Amino acid sequence: MTGVQTCALPISAGLSAYLDTIAFARQSGLLTIGDIKRGDIGSTAEAYAQAHLGPNGADAVTINPYLGSDSLLPFINAAAATGRGLFILVKTSNPSASEIQDLVADGQPIYAHVARLVERLGAPHVDSSGYSLAGAVVGATQKDCAASLRQLMPHAIILAPGYGAQGATAQDCAACFHPNGLGAVVNSSRGITFAWETEPYKSRFGPSRWREAIAAAVIDMKNSLEAVRCP
Amino acid sequence: MTGVQTCALPISAGLSAYLDTIAFARQSGLLTIGDIKRGDIGSTAEAYAQAHLGPNGADAVTINPYLGSDSLLPFINAAAATGRGLFILVKTSNPSASEIQDLVADGQPIYAHVARLVERLGAPHVDSSGYSLAGAVVGATQKDCAASLRQLMPHAIILAPGYGAQGATAQDCAACFHPNGLGAVVNSSRGITFAWETEPYKSRFGPSRWREAIAAAVIDMKNSLEAVRCP
Repeated sequence: MTGVQTCALPISAGLSAYLDTIAFARQSGLLTIGDIKRGDIGSTAEAYAQAHLGPNGADAVTINPYLGSDSLLPFINAAAATGRGLFILVKTSNPSASEIQDLVADGQPIYAHVARLVERLGAPHVDSSGYSLAGAVVGATQKDCAASLRQLMPHAIILAPGYGAQGATAQDCAACFHPNGLGAVVNSSRGITFAWETEPYKSRFGPSRWREAIAAAVIDMKNSLEAVRCP
Repeated sequence: MTGVQTCALPISAGLSAYLDTIAFARQSGLLTIGDIKRGDIGSTAEAYAQAHLGPNGADAVTINPYLGSDSLLPFINAAAATGRGLFILVKTSNPSASEIQDLVADGQPIYAHVARLVERLGAPHVDSSGYSLAGAVVGATQKDCAASLRQLMPHAIILAPGYGAQGATAQDCAACFHPNGLGAVVNSSRGITFAWETEPYKSRFGPSRWREAIAAAVIDMKNSLEAVRCP
């Protein structure tokens, strides 16, 4: 596991497991997103960005916009320097997301203001794919605002958590994609990892065949998303 | 340093330094505030709270409100269980704080909505001091809104960063205190730690006498705050 060996300082058990997971995913040809939700400024933000987007860090991380661009630009600059990506929390998937994010200022909810900030800060970093390094978290459970957020952030890749265990369906995610079927990453964590605990996989596989339950859940999710993203 | 010895798993160099600092402060009779600015939900928030407010953690930590009460309650419950405290980011000291926090919804800036959330979530946890475990970060650089935030959160201890290096003066902090001179903690980090690099301490002490420079800067800060908090 190269992640640990290249670090000169002692590593904790948790950090070691995290870096080993990233290294294993990278060796397997997979991209990794570190859901770190950091939001700090100045030298602290730079240190977080350096650690989390450094050689052993994830391919992208999530960050929190409450402190404004002071807390986003250090990550954007680090991502630009290292070829990594970001997902800025815009409209999250949890029930109380509405308390702050749905407040309406100047005729638009706060999440729309954050979306415009994402698009503006990402604009200098759009590559030939048409996407910028500044993506956005839009909970898959937030289907009512996904279409407007897709329009407000044409250059942002949308990370849509909440599929499965949090209740979102493939149909709920449809508006996160561009008409060409690109532009969104739909995430299922517990719905995949613990598939063997949940029907229909529980009856079909049970705990001893948890690997097969995971494979079946991934294939079902892929097929469901394919059906809606390119209708 | 008991902080490290009581943990059964390997600890990284950075975490070890952090825990050693907390343990040393505690042995010296000082309170510690971990400026961790975490903002996550569910089991992740509970794990952050357990780690940061556990036996070896700080006496209080800072947390981010963008995800709403889902991200605050796990920390509030943990703080209630362990006798610790929280400071929720309300109006931060950095220049771009205004981008999201100053947007006006229903006639009130977002930071005022967050302030009401702090007061509401803290209400069940007000002790005989008259203060709740849910405090608020109000940048000392934000003197124009400090008085209204002090009124909106009568039971919150205000943590006011930004004194010194970020430009705030004792007079700027005055409105964070209650009329009896209590209710606020004013923080200076770089202004104290690097006092020997800054006038008037640089000329008086220089790098070799950095300990005396720190002592002088602390005494000057204390005297300046005493003058304004009990006018």
